[in-house]
Amino acid sequence: MHWVKILGVALGAAALLGLGIILGHFAIPKATSPLTSSTSDSQDLDLAILDSVMGQLDASRIRENLRELSKEPHVATSPRDEALVQLLLGRWKDTATGLDSAKTYEYRVLLSFPNAEQPNSVEVVGPNGTTFHSFQPFEKNLTGEQAGPNVLQPYAAYAPPGTPKGLLVYANQGSEEDFKELETQGINLEGTIALTRYGGVGRGAKAINAAKHGVVGVLVYTDPGDINDGKSLPNETFPNSWRLPPSGVERGSYYEYFGDPLTPYLPAHPSSFRLDPHNTSGFPPIPTQPIGFEDARDLLCNLTGTSAPAFWQGALGCEYKLGPGFEPNGSFPAGSEVKVSVHNRLELRTSSNVLGIIQGAVEPDRYVIYGNHRDSWVHGAVDPSSGTAVLLEISRVLGTLLKKGTWRPRRSIIFASWGAEEFGLIGSTEFTEEFLSKLQERTVAYINVDISVFSNATLRAQGTPPVQSVIFSATKEISAPGSSGLSIYDNWIRYTNRTSPVYGLVPSLGTLGAGSDYAAFVHFLGITSMDLAYTYDRSKTSARIYPTYHTAFDTFDYVEKFLDPGFSSHQAVARTAGSVLLRLSDSLFLPLNVSDYSETLQSFLQAAQEALGTQLEKQNISLGPLVTAVANFKAAAASLGEHILTLQKSSPDPLQVRMVNDQLMLLERAFLNPRAFPEERHYSHVLWAPNTASVDTFPGLANAYAKAQEINSGSEAWAEVQRQLSIVVTALEGAAATLVPVADL
Amino acid sequence: MHWVKILGVALGAAALLGLGIILGHFAIPKATSPLTSSTSDSQDLDLAILDSVMGQLDASRIRENLRELSKEPHVATSPRDEALVQLLLGRWKDTATGLDSAKTYEYRVLLSFPNAEQPNSVEVVGPNGTTFHSFQPFEKNLTGEQAGPNVLQPYAAYAPPGTPKGLLVYANQGSEEDFKELETQGINLEGTIALTRYGGVGRGAKAINAAKHGVVGVLVYTDPGDINDGKSLPNETFPNSWRLPPSGVERGSYYEYFGDPLTPYLPAHPSSFRLDPHNTSGFPPIPTQPIGFEDARDLLCNLTGTSAPAFWQGALGCEYKLGPGFEPNGSFPAGSEVKVSVHNRLELRTSSNVLGIIQGAVEPDRYVIYGNHRDSWVHGAVDPSSGTAVLLEISRVLGTLLKKGTWRPRRSIIFASWGAEEFGLIGSTEFTEEFLSKLQERTVAYINVDISVFSNATLRAQGTPPVQSVIFSATKEISAPGSSGLSIYDNWIRYTNRTSPVYGLVPSLGTLGAGSDYAAFVHFLGITSMDLAYTYDRSKTSARIYPTYHTAFDTFDYVEKFLDPGFSSHQAVARTAGSVLLRLSDSLFLPLNVSDYSETLQSFLQAAQEALGTQLEKQNISLGPLVTAVANFKAAAASLGEHILTLQKSSPDPLQVRMVNDQLMLLERAFLNPRAFPEERHYSHVLWAPNTASVDTFPGLANAYAKAQEINSGSEAWAEVQRQLSIVVTALEGAAATLVPVADL
Repeated sequence: MHWVKILGVALGAAALLGLGIILGHFAIPKATSPLTSSTSDSQDLDLAILDSVMGQLDASRIRENLRELSKEPHVATSPRDEALVQLLLGRWKDTATGLDSAKTYEYRVLLSFPNAEQPNSVEVVGPNGTTFHSFQPFEKNLTGEQAGPNVLQPYAAYAPPGTPKGLLVYANQGSEEDFKELETQGINLEGTIALTRYGGVGRGAKAINAAKHGVVGVLVYTDPGDINDGKSLPNETFPNSWRLPPSGVERGSYYEYFGDPLTPYLPAHPSSFRLDPHNTSGFPPIPTQPIGFEDARDLLCNLTGTSAPAFWQGALGCEYKLGPGFEPNGSFPAGSEVKVSVHNRLELRTSSNVLGIIQGAVEPDRYVIYGNHRDSWVHGAVDPSSGTAVLLEISRVLGTLLKKGTWRPRRSIIFASWGAEEFGLIGSTEFTEEFLSKLQERTVAYINVDISVFSNATLRAQGTPPVQSVIFSATKEISAPGSSGLSIYDNWIRYTNRTSPVYGLVPSLGTLGAGSDYAAFVHFLGITSMDLAYTYDRSKTSARIYPTYHTAFDTFDYVEKFLDPGFSSHQAVARTAGSVLLRLSDSLFLPLNVSDYSETLQSFLQAAQEALGTQLEKQNISLGPLVTAVANFKAAAASLGEHILTLQKSSPDPLQVRMVNDQLMLLERAFLNPRAFPEERHYSHVLWAPNTASVDTFPGLANAYAKAQEINSGSEAWAEVQRQLSIVVTALEGAAATLVPVADL
Repeated sequence: MHWVKILGVALGAAALLGLGIILGHFAIPKATSPLTSSTSDSQDLDLAILDSVMGQLDASRIRENLRELSKEPHVATSPRDEALVQLLLGRWKDTATGLDSAKTYEYRVLLSFPNAEQPNSVEVVGPNGTTFHSFQPFEKNLTGEQAGPNVLQPYAAYAPPGTPKGLLVYANQGSEEDFKELETQGINLEGTIALTRYGGVGRGAKAINAAKHGVVGVLVYTDPGDINDGKSLPNETFPNSWRLPPSGVERGSYYEYFGDPLTPYLPAHPSSFRLDPHNTSGFPPIPTQPIGFEDARDLLCNLTGTSAPAFWQGALGCEYKLGPGFEPNGSFPAGSEVKVSVHNRLELRTSSNVLGIIQGAVEPDRYVIYGNHRDSWVHGAVDPSSGTAVLLEISRVLGTLLKKGTWRPRRSIIFASWGAEEFGLIGSTEFTEEFLSKLQERTVAYINVDISVFSNATLRAQGTPPVQSVIFSATKEISAPGSSGLSIYDNWIRYTNRTSPVYGLVPSLGTLGAGSDYAAFVHFLGITSMDLAYTYDRSKTSARIYPTYHTAFDTFDYVEKFLDPGFSSHQAVARTAGSVLLRLSDSLFLPLNVSDYSETLQSFLQAAQEALGTQLEKQNISLGPLVTAVANFKAAAASLGEHILTLQKSSPDPLQVRMVNDQLMLLERAFLNPRAFPEERHYSHVLWAPNTASVDTFPGLANAYAKAQEINSGSEAWAEVQRQLSIVVTALEGAAATLVPVADL
């Protein structure tokens, strides 16, 4: 399938004229050494180069990359992970297709592994001590790839060792509300083992919430209702479909923060100060183990007690009850308990990031960073190798142009392969901790492509608002995979859209949580970030995520047979990310539309007014200053936009361009306040910190308001609401001040 | 006295050549509107303009400025303070001598004032309740300026109201060690009033330390031994000499932090979140009142008890004893107590900063900020009007050039007149809190000239190391006041010097504490800062500070008669600050030598090795990573220096210059860590935060080490030492990473 450039008729003439100018410009030979004076400070995006890159991004090479990357399990710091470090270095140092330079950055980080000599286990133990049922310690070997010494037993990373035993209860998703509901139902949770299903709250939160209520051990399984659209039979699941087989188990990190657990805010060098691991916060407090739904069924369908609420029910083919303990006439003797044996070990390991750079021709001190993690849980064909396969293809195409001497970007491009992401975004976070100042001062944007293809229906893009414009520009020019003839943009808008007060109907850009390596960039450093992937048709599946996520069934064959035969969705993501990367690194004016933040701020403001306004008024807390701040931001952003348009029509001198680009690049930094959320480690972005409340507004305000609304809250809680309001107002006014003309008082 | 340019013979030829090139350059008419494209992105310092500015800075105009500024008391937010706001606005908006624009920035801040209806008092009360002695509530009216409704009674700002009464003890300077010494002497401090003298520890610390030991009220006086070289008689003191008269009292803020007390980290807008004033930390915990040494003598020379240690003795003409209480045969009946009545009131007041700008011609988004506070305690001729008089003269000379259309600086120059400095650097701190991002991203340097002339002997300069080079360059070219024929530099080196491993004998640049409005710039924002003044010949006086500091005797006549007749020292400071300002705002390459940080780091490292090394080794804490970090910083700074020299010899393009200037400008930011000292509000600079320990090394390390050395300290204290070491290493390595070539991985 070839790439077809989509050019609207209206665009044609202007684009051709622009292209002519640009081609004329490029008739001047380009300097190939980045450190000598550039031949042109006005070097701009070259549409012919962009065209050529789009054409060269090759689906079959992505396929081959993926086959190589995923042929063996490569959990962080394993020998295969280290072999992939060498593979990346080799690619990026290649004299014909490589970059200017590449090197590794090593960190000594705390990881958690199961004990190969003493696997974790889950058993049902009768009242007399007899073991009635032992659960499968490994996933079934369905395709020949699920066995072998490098396939880690399913486990909950960072769950502490221990062998708790107790009556089983079913606790739905393990949220605080779920445990409260059990207590409301009269169930004494003290000393119990809680069976929970994935979803709702984060992994670690299940154990943290459970322990607060006296639970001594936690099991977590994936319900077929949540992952398989209800299907659970072997012939309905992998390798017969994309669905999760009954023995499949989602591994994952149960650590609550991100970054190396022992060195918060410091790079994890061997000599760095480390917290005492026994005194570290954020680990699950009690032994926890994930299991497959086949095993979960044996437990859940034998529980006694009252029926679980309707929305706690799942697709295991029985009515879920709450426990505690098993029903007398079921598979297990009365009084049987569940024993969870966890033998996980914490280990200090050396994890590597690999970074490669194409030095900018004109502004080498401006960085566009493109990254993905390298480590998987098992083979990790989808997660993360589908992203790395795309990353390698983009770096190959750009490297080839570079080595031929026909192109060098205006700004520097940094490619990153992060280590130990699965354990808590560790490699990327340590890197941001090590190079905080340099990265904050110089990074234009961070592009993350982790899982590049969840499914093959449509683009999914998440990011802070200024990236919307460049993603839209890129995707309007690339054809979508399949036979629709639509651009990626036009295909995308069919699946997920919203009505913007400014633009009308547009695809919906999602927001960034902390699900991948962009987290430290956006939340800790305040760098404009985005995450790109191809994803599901939600009319066809309600799966929480692709079904083999973090299991031993996430293999190359799985991708090729079920997710993206032909790899055209991989290619579409490569083109989208590649185009965005080129536009950010090569455009004379940064294609970041800071005015697009105004819509977000307006919607946060409106939500605050509607949902919190009345109560705030009763507390004499006025939203007036916030209204003013949002208006000031809007006006400043709009007038900067006009200023840029005026400059674009003139012949701006290089410093004039640099000045507005600095305004655009640095806007996101103005939203950082390291003192806003002292208890939320690494979260400093006052607009995108975790919002655990129900109102979709400024997170600090939403959370503080929710807390003040709790019974027994007092004047201190309302003072915190006022403080959070002032923090937001100060950030918005401060941000607006960076957008007004630079020498205005 | 005219300004004479000092040009060394060796400099001559090169300078003339340079001048020729520059004059050639300026033959091209300069654009006068800053917002159109500059005619030359390579605009550089124009020595002819510099020469002209130096010549025009006029001593008699400074004198007239000072007369006007100090003619009435103008404590923060008083009517006269507001009148001076209008005066400044008028000057800066003048069409012939003004700036591009000027405006005010208002903050609603918490100040503390004595109660005019109920003055504070200090009395000796006999055992039967009779008042034996009442202390003078106001200073004596010696020159006709010490009386009147606008002369605030001497008081300790932010000391709480109250009327404690108790036996008097003498507690030297009120340090923690001083109170411990009293207890060692067997004195029960519970319920006592402590008489302390200024010096040693900060004002607020005296009351804080006292309260910890059960003291209920504090008096503070200025000992003639500390301020008057021992002299105390009326005929030896003002108005007969520069010395403090017996009734003179140093007012001052007793607040421990800086910035508005109720709005830490937030600008004090009317709607901003405010702490509860009754719950605010940093205020003196007990009533406190300053008194003159005439009154102090009556107390101190009547004390009973054992003699105070030799170094506690002063120049009041009697042997100082410790108390508690008065000696039976003295002026007061046995059992007499001292009653301190404080009626201070906290008030929310609106304080204004005035800012004026000259917009940069080429890089309007680069700011050189020059500021001083406006508010005084009484007339404040020296503090702060001697600085403001200089500020106004510099802005007049530059404004005149600007309005004539003959000059516009390369970068923007911002002049600032801060409000409410005396209460705790409030105006400047609120401003940095409001415009944090904008200022951090764009400020090249902050120049502070508060008291411009303490005395007329020599320059005194304090700053972070990168400013040394520009101050040296400026002062080598300006003649010192007086008849020596020396340059300011050559005069300076005679008074205070050190041997630099790089440069040999050079004048000593002091370090910045938090004594004036540079504090928020350097400590909170990490902006390269300096403070300039003319000061004492230390062979002639050991006065703590100029004797009438913060008294009603700090008047215009005092300056003219005793500090700087002829105002030539004022002029010397104007020329120095003006030259530094022009060099920073006009030089193509920023004249900040970041390599000069290497000497500081090396000396901090050496001090750590020598003083802490052995003990650290015993705790298995290695200084090795610090040694490496200092070496890496040195190497990176040196090679950036070489890169700049190479660029200077070529014809660098505008972006190449901007890139290295960004490296120079932003270096200081890399030393910030807002999480390093969570208990030291606003102090984030890991090299210049308060060092309360005895070793002159990295402050976090020094303080943590001192704490770990205390008896009963445990492994947690040593862990904090290791943490502080890692914080410094990370900062230095991070800083070095900003200095290496910008596209090096």
